Amino acid sequence: MMKWWGWGDPQKTFPMDDKPNLWNWIGNKLHIKENKKISEPVLRSQVIISQANINEDFLQEISNQLEKNQIFITDEERLLHSYGKSYADLFYVRKGIVKKSPDIVIYPKSHEEVEVIMKLAHAHNVCVIPFGGGTNIVGGVDPRDQTVTSKGARSIVSLDMKFMNKVMSFDPQSQTAVIQGGALGPDLEMQLGEKGWSLGHYPDSFEYSTLGGWLATRSAGMQSDAYGKIEDMLVSLKMVTPTGTVVTRTTPASSAGPDLNRFIVGSEGILGVITEATMRIHRAPEVKDYKGFLFPSFEKGVEAIRECIDKNWIPSMIRLQDAGETQLALNMKSPKKGLEAIIQKQIKRFLMATGYQKPCIMIVGFEGDFKNTQTIGQEAVKILKKHRGFSLGKSVGKTWSKDKFNVPYLRDYMMDYAVMVDVAETAAVWSKLLTVYNKTIEEVTSRFQDEGDGAGYIGCHISHTYKTGACLYFTYGAKQTVGKEMEQYYSYKKLITDTFLKNGATLTHHHAVGYEHSPWMETEVSATGLRALKAVKDALDPKNICNPGKVLPVEDEMRLGVFGIDAPEVVHQSKARAKKRSGQVSRNLNENTIG
Amino acid sequence: MMKWWGWGDPQKTFPMDDKPNLWNWIGNKLHIKENKKISEPVLRSQVIISQANINEDFLQEISNQLEKNQIFITDEERLLHSYGKSYADLFYVRKGIVKKSPDIVIYPKSHEEVEVIMKLAHAHNVCVIPFGGGTNIVGGVDPRDQTVTSKGARSIVSLDMKFMNKVMSFDPQSQTAVIQGGALGPDLEMQLGEKGWSLGHYPDSFEYSTLGGWLATRSAGMQSDAYGKIEDMLVSLKMVTPTGTVVTRTTPASSAGPDLNRFIVGSEGILGVITEATMRIHRAPEVKDYKGFLFPSFEKGVEAIRECIDKNWIPSMIRLQDAGETQLALNMKSPKKGLEAIIQKQIKRFLMATGYQKPCIMIVGFEGDFKNTQTIGQEAVKILKKHRGFSLGKSVGKTWSKDKFNVPYLRDYMMDYAVMVDVAETAAVWSKLLTVYNKTIEEVTSRFQDEGDGAGYIGCHISHTYKTGACLYFTYGAKQTVGKEMEQYYSYKKLITDTFLKNGATLTHHHAVGYEHSPWMETEVSATGLRALKAVKDALDPKNICNPGKVLPVEDEMRLGVFGIDAPEVVHQSKARAKKRSGQVSRNLNENTIG
Repeated sequence: MMKWWGWGDPQKTFPMDDKPNLWNWIGNKLHIKENKKISEPVLRSQVIISQANINEDFLQEISNQLEKNQIFITDEERLLHSYGKSYADLFYVRKGIVKKSPDIVIYPKSHEEVEVIMKLAHAHNVCVIPFGGGTNIVGGVDPRDQTVTSKGARSIVSLDMKFMNKVMSFDPQSQTAVIQGGALGPDLEMQLGEKGWSLGHYPDSFEYSTLGGWLATRSAGMQSDAYGKIEDMLVSLKMVTPTGTVVTRTTPASSAGPDLNRFIVGSEGILGVITEATMRIHRAPEVKDYKGFLFPSFEKGVEAIRECIDKNWIPSMIRLQDAGETQLALNMKSPKKGLEAIIQKQIKRFLMATGYQKPCIMIVGFEGDFKNTQTIGQEAVKILKKHRGFSLGKSVGKTWSKDKFNVPYLRDYMMDYAVMVDVAETAAVWSKLLTVYNKTIEEVTSRFQDEGDGAGYIGCHISHTYKTGACLYFTYGAKQTVGKEMEQYYSYKKLITDTFLKNGATLTHHHAVGYEHSPWMETEVSATGLRALKAVKDALDPKNICNPGKVLPVEDEMRLGVFGIDAPEVVHQSKARAKKRSGQVSRNLNENTIG
Repeated sequence: MMKWWGWGDPQKTFPMDDKPNLWNWIGNKLHIKENKKISEPVLRSQVIISQANINEDFLQEISNQLEKNQIFITDEERLLHSYGKSYADLFYVRKGIVKKSPDIVIYPKSHEEVEVIMKLAHAHNVCVIPFGGGTNIVGGVDPRDQTVTSKGARSIVSLDMKFMNKVMSFDPQSQTAVIQGGALGPDLEMQLGEKGWSLGHYPDSFEYSTLGGWLATRSAGMQSDAYGKIEDMLVSLKMVTPTGTVVTRTTPASSAGPDLNRFIVGSEGILGVITEATMRIHRAPEVKDYKGFLFPSFEKGVEAIRECIDKNWIPSMIRLQDAGETQLALNMKSPKKGLEAIIQKQIKRFLMATGYQKPCIMIVGFEGDFKNTQTIGQEAVKILKKHRGFSLGKSVGKTWSKDKFNVPYLRDYMMDYAVMVDVAETAAVWSKLLTVYNKTIEEVTSRFQDEGDGAGYIGCHISHTYKTGACLYFTYGAKQTVGKEMEQYYSYKKLITDTFLKNGATLTHHHAVGYEHSPWMETEVSATGLRALKAVKDALDPKNICNPGKVLPVEDEMRLGVFGIDAPEVVHQSKARAKKRSGQVSRNLNENTIG
């Protein structure tokens, strides 16, 4: 499991020592004057967990069916399954606040056991929240059931899929493998790698997220430019619903009605539990070649990408960082010494003189067999250079590749200094991409002004490109507004999401909907579209026991525009009650603040 | 419109004169001794059309909203919208039998008009069947409503989308175009071509089928190896349902819940009418290069394809004909004369001596810009040759390309000689593909024996390849069993479809479900999956006015295994009534037989 109060390995913190320039640069950006931690997490013993609400009949029956080490009602297990890893999740738990915990944590070991569990949960009206690695940052795994039965609130099970982590079978001829839903990224890559294969899906959360979670949230990995999003790699699956199991057919393509696979990917546990999937795999690449380039502007970089795509010479990975993110990246590097430093200075002078005042780093990757990679690589590099891509060689790519899974640790580090750090991602067609980019930067920058003295950081990169457009991934940070941290957080989220949708981008490209994006779902898919989604939910899960409160907006007032700038649970209440509750939350926060 | 009694241009028949070997070869295969037409279609005047069942209130209201030339209740219009182009459809109408006709034919001119029509249809409980080009061969467009209201049967509208044939806007930067659902293949390619673009979707029915129809049936075009199936080219769409319009977002990718686009593609009109779609387009290719190869066996050809895919050197089109279809193709060629004939004879001798006794033709196409096409072409050809692909040069490709849209005319020609001709297509992963292929050939060949003297033709080609597998497309024919033509037809359909599903292939790769494949839908998508589909149908079309009787099996007895070997409408009846009706149909047929 990850650390309860933050991201990743409990033994690991963000390595700041080898980045002597970074802290100064951040301090300047955010106007942090003192290098002093002022908002560290509370002690574990200070975290208050609500009493478990156990459906005894269900617990009895399920205990008859499973082994002892599969069922837990301990505070420790309940805490670790109470939330995901959003800024809001961590903000609360670092203060010792856990709004709601699941009551029972169950670890199934097989598809058949999941069928037993779902059947009993349905019979006993117990909620089930599938739990992969718990990396969701949109409120995807936290308990949000609001149903009140004659016996009070319903019990909530967190279904941790950890034990279902096997590659069950290979079909090398068809280039597919059947993999269990609970397999973590490293788990499945190791098992595939032993036989010379790879799935090739590397989201930022790779080390702590699972195949089932990727499918449930329509995840995208770093090499998606070549291999597609997770839904493109999916061939067939099994999903256990409260009223039966959906089994789709293992076939390369079909026209037998609407594609049931696509009803299930993106369903985020609200229809059932994805227990196993047949995935398209590929030979472990002979070559993995990463190269860095510097572009004189974000626009020039975008032009270069578009021509690569247009000419069909497409790297397996493209990551174009804007000027803001490039500054961050450059300040994360160890400075060169001696001769290297002199050469670097000369290069910098040359670049400044030739128009690279706001340089943007692009990292491109080429994966595959030798010949194919070489050909595509040569042609793509020609195009990048034509658009003034200045080659930085392989070292930038290597540095990025080495550090790629470390970046999430930086947020925990910053939160110790009472800094709000969040990310927002979307996708837009090429003709709208730069407008979405510029408007978002503009709105957030102007919010930095409105909220304080203009201090704040925002940067963006393009990753995940398509013929028709690309993903934009923003990272931003500012000092916390003390006492109104959640208001501040939601005001940025609303500002950015509104900007995305107003300018033709999508609600989310790969972070999914969860609870936090649900107010915008009608804008995204239309009212009639939403009715179609709800219909599937009602048919397969008539008691709404599957991850209630996610994806589908719960009440009318949750619609875009009414979405408050307050703590998430407030939004579920009527407006009057919302205000009252909001006050309570703030009070609680103040009581628990320890900085 | 196409000819009422067969395929395509009423002025055109299959060109037999330039193929001096073909008729003899067919005659030998099918044991047709006399070159005498014995089963030509009746005269148009002999076709009996049921009386129109007009909902006067609806007609009145709709007449107030549309122009006169948009609404028809003439027999002529009703006849042309009564059926698609399956063997069964044509068999009946050639005898003068039209089982059921739509009562009103409406031609909308805009998305807004479709909204008006659907709203009124919903209000007045009138059925609506979207009609594109009418090329469906699985009973997709024929009226099958069985609802009986207090006022009797419901009126049925055939909604002909012909007037909605415009490319409405281009976005060259994003490589997309917004196209109306009623645009025929040549319509839209012409409009796109004028600006240097192409959709690149060329199904066999290209000349007579529409974008809306392609989307509704998850169609696949000849260049799908490069550009994907129609659903892969779809970016967003509008579908008018009886209870509102679904509008999906124009974005390159998203993780905002399950993908609504994929709820709609494959829905075959049972949810509503696709009025327009934003499609991914591409620059009209600089190069279109088709090449022919001869392989010593089907297996060798498959090996070659798999290596191309594995190494990622993928032609935009791959078509591998088995020995049976290769014989047909060779007999369709004009024989060479003089020196060419001598050379050809030598080549043939050489091939026979080196193991090409059962030769299989492969045609590969390379489309795109010059450099890309050349590179992929060179590498792919190396692989084909390595697997003993014997180069036939460009002429075979050219011949095929020239004749590619003529083949459907051959069926009409053969039906004049009382021959049953049908096609069946599926897809399977590579590890199952040859088993599905061999079993199907085996089962059909043995049925030829059981049913008669072993005379019959079956051939197959692979088209539409994927990383994980490919499509198998069978064509077969045998002399009609006089008086039991439909029993014969359905016995083959059942035999082949059962063989597909038993061996792990899909129900259909691109012909869709319609009425004829609906009995196997539960086997294809599982009972729980089917409930999900039904839920969407019930939510968006609560009165079941949208193309009723399609995709979803109507009654329990329609399930696989109960599906009769009799005329389609029989299957809807209880078993006792079914038998009775079956007798009636046979009687009708006999009365109408004119051969």
